[in-house]
Amino acid sequence: MAKMKADSEAVQVGMTVPKKNFSEWFSEVLAKAELSDIRYNAKGFIVFRPWSVLSMKAMYRAYERELESRGHKPVLFPAVIPESNFKTESEHVEGFAPEVFWIEKAGKGTKLPERLALRPTSETAMYRMYSKWVRSWRDLPLKLYQSCQVWRHETKSTRPFIRSREFHWIEAHDAFATREGAEKQVKEDMEMTDAVMHRQFGVPFMFFRRPQWDKFAGAENTFAADTIMPDGKILQQPSTHMLGQNFSRPFGIAFEDRDGKEKFAWQTCYGPAISRIFASVVAQHGDDRGLVFPFDIAPVQIVIIPVGPPDKMVERKCLEMKDTLFAEGYRVEFDDSDFTAGWKFNQWEMKGVPVRIEIGPKEIKSRQITLVRRDTGARQKVPESGLIKAIPETGQAITANLVRKADAQFRSSIRSASSMDQLKKALEAGGLVRINFCSDQKDGEACADRIKETIHAHVRGVRADVEERPTGKCIVCGKKASVVVYVGRQY
Amino acid sequence: MAKMKADSEAVQVGMTVPKKNFSEWFSEVLAKAELSDIRYNAKGFIVFRPWSVLSMKAMYRAYERELESRGHKPVLFPAVIPESNFKTESEHVEGFAPEVFWIEKAGKGTKLPERLALRPTSETAMYRMYSKWVRSWRDLPLKLYQSCQVWRHETKSTRPFIRSREFHWIEAHDAFATREGAEKQVKEDMEMTDAVMHRQFGVPFMFFRRPQWDKFAGAENTFAADTIMPDGKILQQPSTHMLGQNFSRPFGIAFEDRDGKEKFAWQTCYGPAISRIFASVVAQHGDDRGLVFPFDIAPVQIVIIPVGPPDKMVERKCLEMKDTLFAEGYRVEFDDSDFTAGWKFNQWEMKGVPVRIEIGPKEIKSRQITLVRRDTGARQKVPESGLIKAIPETGQAITANLVRKADAQFRSSIRSASSMDQLKKALEAGGLVRINFCSDQKDGEACADRIKETIHAHVRGVRADVEERPTGKCIVCGKKASVVVYVGRQY
Repeated sequence: MAKMKADSEAVQVGMTVPKKNFSEWFSEVLAKAELSDIRYNAKGFIVFRPWSVLSMKAMYRAYERELESRGHKPVLFPAVIPESNFKTESEHVEGFAPEVFWIEKAGKGTKLPERLALRPTSETAMYRMYSKWVRSWRDLPLKLYQSCQVWRHETKSTRPFIRSREFHWIEAHDAFATREGAEKQVKEDMEMTDAVMHRQFGVPFMFFRRPQWDKFAGAENTFAADTIMPDGKILQQPSTHMLGQNFSRPFGIAFEDRDGKEKFAWQTCYGPAISRIFASVVAQHGDDRGLVFPFDIAPVQIVIIPVGPPDKMVERKCLEMKDTLFAEGYRVEFDDSDFTAGWKFNQWEMKGVPVRIEIGPKEIKSRQITLVRRDTGARQKVPESGLIKAIPETGQAITANLVRKADAQFRSSIRSASSMDQLKKALEAGGLVRINFCSDQKDGEACADRIKETIHAHVRGVRADVEERPTGKCIVCGKKASVVVYVGRQY
Repeated sequence: MAKMKADSEAVQVGMTVPKKNFSEWFSEVLAKAELSDIRYNAKGFIVFRPWSVLSMKAMYRAYERELESRGHKPVLFPAVIPESNFKTESEHVEGFAPEVFWIEKAGKGTKLPERLALRPTSETAMYRMYSKWVRSWRDLPLKLYQSCQVWRHETKSTRPFIRSREFHWIEAHDAFATREGAEKQVKEDMEMTDAVMHRQFGVPFMFFRRPQWDKFAGAENTFAADTIMPDGKILQQPSTHMLGQNFSRPFGIAFEDRDGKEKFAWQTCYGPAISRIFASVVAQHGDDRGLVFPFDIAPVQIVIIPVGPPDKMVERKCLEMKDTLFAEGYRVEFDDSDFTAGWKFNQWEMKGVPVRIEIGPKEIKSRQITLVRRDTGARQKVPESGLIKAIPETGQAITANLVRKADAQFRSSIRSASSMDQLKKALEAGGLVRINFCSDQKDGEACADRIKETIHAHVRGVRADVEERPTGKCIVCGKKASVVVYVGRQY
């Protein structure tokens, strides 16, 4: 922490753009809270700074714990994929080829015997090995995940955390003996999304089965969690794909079943992108003063700030408390810089630290400390002896409050429309709009295109968690509706 | 766990090669314990399987905790480095250019505006940003690390974990206001190596200042930890580099000092390669029956095996114990497969699980369980109520024992020689051999070359931790010795 800066300088450190101007607010908070640096000199690549990395590491741990508790084991595959693997499944290569970075040379001009794709996703790296590992029904299910980066040469405009040419994610790739096993996994992937992204990170979503024209290259069906950003636009978060036997056939992932017959495995894959979910966390919980983090994934969970005139007793108490909380496993900072207490309050609020502890001569005398919550600003006196109990309780209360607020906001962003005019009007308010629609199979694509062209919105699909029956006609073409779909403007 | 396999099949699962045939033993243990798969179809790249990844993740956590406790913060830089960055420091580019994978194209033939190096190390990615972040003495020291992979187009023959075209490491890059600050950091890097690699992972080493002809491309000086493999060959582990101002000048990492003057920063970098350290862990502690892991970095720390005839009470007790230990934060497995207890013992011993818990009707009756240590085979009865205390104690005892054994073996592998003949003979026994040597500056390179050519060994450098004064003549050229160096045959 820099020492002895004038308060006049300090003023400029705070946020200046209100959150209602979301796009500018987002850029400002990324820079001022030092989450990322966009000045790296390769287009579409950013530097992740400590304040985002500390949080993303906690997010990774939470997701990995959930995956492992449900029988997944970690692996690490190479970042490069030989072109011949990549071409094994034809729809897959067609979908990804436009975005692949290729390595053809090494050293001072050595040409590689086969070009290597920098992985845009790992199906074609992993499934060739799966064909060696899976021999018998006893080897199934095979549930593996890796935490890694992937690279895609995006031609759309990039935005830090939201869309970059490099992102940090987890990909889980599972193989089963039966279609039912794979279908159950798709459901489990949705449950994990709820258990982690929603209940721990506070990012609500709706899971859609994507229309046939908008599914993952090579999948039978794609199920994706759509979240709503503060500007009303939709941001896709984790998706899980029912691959059927589309990959197991060309890759030869076959096994001898209990009945002695040779069969192809049924597969799924699931991909939560941690760096993108981080964007949703920032967007969902932040306010006019800056970041607000759920307790468990805050880069720093507790900051201790001395108040009142400099005092040796106070300093000693702060240090002692920091050591106690650190030993309890919390990420904690003691801000002993020479800034004023008021400046420090603003700074750490902007940084989104969930809990502030204030200690001054008064606190020492009364053997009570002051806890301040970032989310509500509420102040609470806690007897020193009760601190170890108060911290996790406060942490849970903060996260619960953020989840509650996010849920209310999400619910209020779901509307219905029964005509194109209504749809257009509803979309002005942002969020997702529910409509009757002719078909989510190939024959519905023309109507989806009309929505895209006339009102610049996308058909997200039918809900994956509940069955909704249409009652009238497609609001685009007037034919009998066969599905209820949701429409939104997307990132 | 596969069910109902015949014991005849099971027999083949165990190790067949004794450890004294180290090279074959190493290959066998990697395959049988399922640490890696070498059948990935890009040359020099391997797949890391769960049994190594679980351990490497624990190793990463241990190292990151140590780095963070000493003021380092995590960052994540792009995996690609524009060629212009890469060329900024001339010695550096010369050293690394022969090994770089280059990306020139993306998608269906789009040529990138500038070619991108797949990072072989991140100095030239990071230091350009450092020049933007460092403005004043207040911004120093800057201590950042990243956990990531790097890629090098090795032309030497590759070996899993030991030398691959992709490896998993941590790189810490620090900048200071003074030379003294940087020099202190080099010492701290050596201390961290001792605190983590030696005392937690049980891999002893000797830190050498490398001769001038063998230092990191761009460094003033390189300090590297040499370890000794069971076949007597030397494997280099973490190195730390005093970069001086060699990078801060071309990259413009300058700051205004307290005295108002503009100065260039002093830099160091430190690189523990987790995947390679894992090779040392496997090699150091393994025995004829397979892997042996220190407790804290074991993929699974405790395995619970029911003994005696199938019994519901026993099963319930095993499950209960598993839940208890899991809740305490241990990585624990309950092996309820249909194999015989004896087969399971062998299997989990081969896998190196430090602690085995046996529970049978006898144990239930006496309310005692049996703990068996992998490292010594010692059996111990523990009252059920004392388990939570016994586990960490046993874990610590195992790690301490492995460290002690490793240290004794390391010490016995250090010899002295006072002639080329003696050196040659001493090297037959493997390890490091101490000799008087003319010079570790450029003028000593000819003698080092003679050692390389005539007895196929390398001069590793002078000890970095203690000062050793030569007393006689260089054993190669007969000139007055100016240094004591150590020689060994290397991987």
